[in-house]
Amino acid sequence: MPRLSELSHRMPPSPIRKLVPYADEAKKRGIKIYHLNIGQPDIETPENVRRKLKEIDLKVLAYTKSQGTDSYRAKLAEYYGRHGIDVSPEDIIVTTGGSEALLFTIGSIADPGDEIIIPEPYYANYNSFVTMYRVKVVPIPSSIDRNFALPPVEEFEKVITPRTKAILYSNPSNPTGYVYTREEVAKLRELALKHDIFIISDEVYREFIYEGSGHRSILHEPGMEAHGIMVDSVSKRYSMCGARIGCVVSKNKDLMKSVLKFAQARLSPPALEQILAEEAVDTPQSYFDRVIGEYKKRRDILIEGLSAIEGVKIGYPKGAFYLMAELPVDDADEFAKWMLSEFDDKGETVMVAPASGFYSDPALGRKQVRIAYVLNTKDLERSVEILEKALKAYNAR
Amino acid sequence: MPRLSELSHRMPPSPIRKLVPYADEAKKRGIKIYHLNIGQPDIETPENVRRKLKEIDLKVLAYTKSQGTDSYRAKLAEYYGRHGIDVSPEDIIVTTGGSEALLFTIGSIADPGDEIIIPEPYYANYNSFVTMYRVKVVPIPSSIDRNFALPPVEEFEKVITPRTKAILYSNPSNPTGYVYTREEVAKLRELALKHDIFIISDEVYREFIYEGSGHRSILHEPGMEAHGIMVDSVSKRYSMCGARIGCVVSKNKDLMKSVLKFAQARLSPPALEQILAEEAVDTPQSYFDRVIGEYKKRRDILIEGLSAIEGVKIGYPKGAFYLMAELPVDDADEFAKWMLSEFDDKGETVMVAPASGFYSDPALGRKQVRIAYVLNTKDLERSVEILEKALKAYNAR
Repeated sequence: MPRLSELSHRMPPSPIRKLVPYADEAKKRGIKIYHLNIGQPDIETPENVRRKLKEIDLKVLAYTKSQGTDSYRAKLAEYYGRHGIDVSPEDIIVTTGGSEALLFTIGSIADPGDEIIIPEPYYANYNSFVTMYRVKVVPIPSSIDRNFALPPVEEFEKVITPRTKAILYSNPSNPTGYVYTREEVAKLRELALKHDIFIISDEVYREFIYEGSGHRSILHEPGMEAHGIMVDSVSKRYSMCGARIGCVVSKNKDLMKSVLKFAQARLSPPALEQILAEEAVDTPQSYFDRVIGEYKKRRDILIEGLSAIEGVKIGYPKGAFYLMAELPVDDADEFAKWMLSEFDDKGETVMVAPASGFYSDPALGRKQVRIAYVLNTKDLERSVEILEKALKAYNAR
Repeated sequence: MPRLSELSHRMPPSPIRKLVPYADEAKKRGIKIYHLNIGQPDIETPENVRRKLKEIDLKVLAYTKSQGTDSYRAKLAEYYGRHGIDVSPEDIIVTTGGSEALLFTIGSIADPGDEIIIPEPYYANYNSFVTMYRVKVVPIPSSIDRNFALPPVEEFEKVITPRTKAILYSNPSNPTGYVYTREEVAKLRELALKHDIFIISDEVYREFIYEGSGHRSILHEPGMEAHGIMVDSVSKRYSMCGARIGCVVSKNKDLMKSVLKFAQARLSPPALEQILAEEAVDTPQSYFDRVIGEYKKRRDILIEGLSAIEGVKIGYPKGAFYLMAELPVDDADEFAKWMLSEFDDKGETVMVAPASGFYSDPALGRKQVRIAYVLNTKDLERSVEILEKALKAYNAR
């Protein structure tokens, strides 16, 4: 049998999915599982988008331009304008999800052995895209005790080398829910200009901020035309994860020329879903008011409920729909597995994402889990109750 | 300004699109262009698929499984069964177009410096996917004088090295329209087993065969469980290029585990379009009868028309909807550009794809162009007429 590539062995398995076989077993035993482990919102896709779907009438479902349709890119420029980000359609390339936006961006800026600095914990799939190009992640630990705020600039300075090509971060952050302040984003700008490196800002949770002074984009910063790259997606914004529509936004024309070559190789992003994404930009503010209100309620339930559990420490989240919790256990991977395979409370249990997958060194996240609040408030309250009972039972074994 | 990657410079620009600026200029001057350069069919998407689109009713446009929905994969297994290819849903991973299927496949089998043998001319974007992983294309020339049949086995033997990981080919072929015979596919099987290498067979044009004894898939061959990989797509089959739904099919379980890791990194293929692709499998045979009849008519017009032009030589196509023509010019790139920028016949001209982009060494295809027959018969006849006049005028300058 022919040998597979070395890369095939190095590609990291999804940390969210490694517990799935245990969950499947639990379901077979009739256990009901509350899924706190996934980033698939239960929130409905906006009504205008669902209406648009009914209205689409195409004779031929044809390729679109590789960079996305002109009309959608124009609409996106309008959307960013509303958020104080001044870009034109030429500064935008539509991608198949935020994932592809990252894949094309990293390929455009980094070669094997080059380094990308990422504050950790970070979105686990960053590892996959970086691995595909044999680029090296240089992690900078952020701490649960500071709610995962940006590490001090000196920490970045310490690890910047001639091979450093970029700093990559998500804001609001998946998995921590941290929202970077204006001052922190300005510090990243300074680092970029001083060391002549890119800042890649993953802003897919832009709208989901529950307190504080709002969202500061890397593209709000002055003088970032050459150095600023924003990665975005409609997935969470309009609860249309299945659409697979994202984009790369930058004023760096050479970068965009390179991203376009990657985009041309795969011909076109999905056509129908670009039509829906274009409609989604016109989603009324009332939708967001309702959705953000709902997420805030859920967040508050989790903060209150988890903080009340003895030995549990949380990173206070201000945005996205995740939080990181440190549990009074030695190994959260084992605990999460145990909750699925050996525990239940009245036939119910919870599934969490062990945080080890969100760290470059799994040991750093050994006691932590990521909890997504994509369940309704009643289910969340019940989930907290189950988690508390599970922790007691686990530590009393 | 930060330096881009070396890869960004090495990524090949799309050969189909390099003439686009000249075409845009021509349009501005009011010239009508017949597009023989693109692979976007004018054929309507099947009615049942368009009806299905109207019926989709989703509350949440959610992620699907990374490997694709269970129901679509089951349907695909049924489809392949009808074509004598015995696979189960577990042997199928749904991808975002055939492009992503190639991207995940190549990443799973080849590391930097490894070699993939491809009979040339070949689909230009193969270069891009191979380049992304720093894998080397080893071309084997096929000849227009033999209608681009499979080169003799000895030619393969000559270039197989310890770094050879696979032979990649498309059948029916884009850009040549060649349909590999049962004997040729059997030869590839023998090479795979003798040298323990993969065969990657791109079969997106399976249905489009106009004469001869039908399609022979690499997965029809016995004993190819470990070595055979098929790449497929709904784009051309159901004229739904914009759907971006493809798949990797193989019985090699280790390979499929690797492909799944790549698939998990990008979370999910497009959700809506999987629903449509699933419906498309039930497209009635009458649709194909009509479409294949239409393409055959067009092919015959081209074969007859082009053969009648003095100095033009064609590779006789039996499938897909392309043919390669050698023109009585020194440089088909220059000629194609000239047709857009300096020539017209009664305000009309044609756009072709210079073949240089389909060869590893552009010089090999210097006199050739790829012609796609995605226009109606009347427009095709007119295109041939214009091409003939253009050649005369060009050579009389």
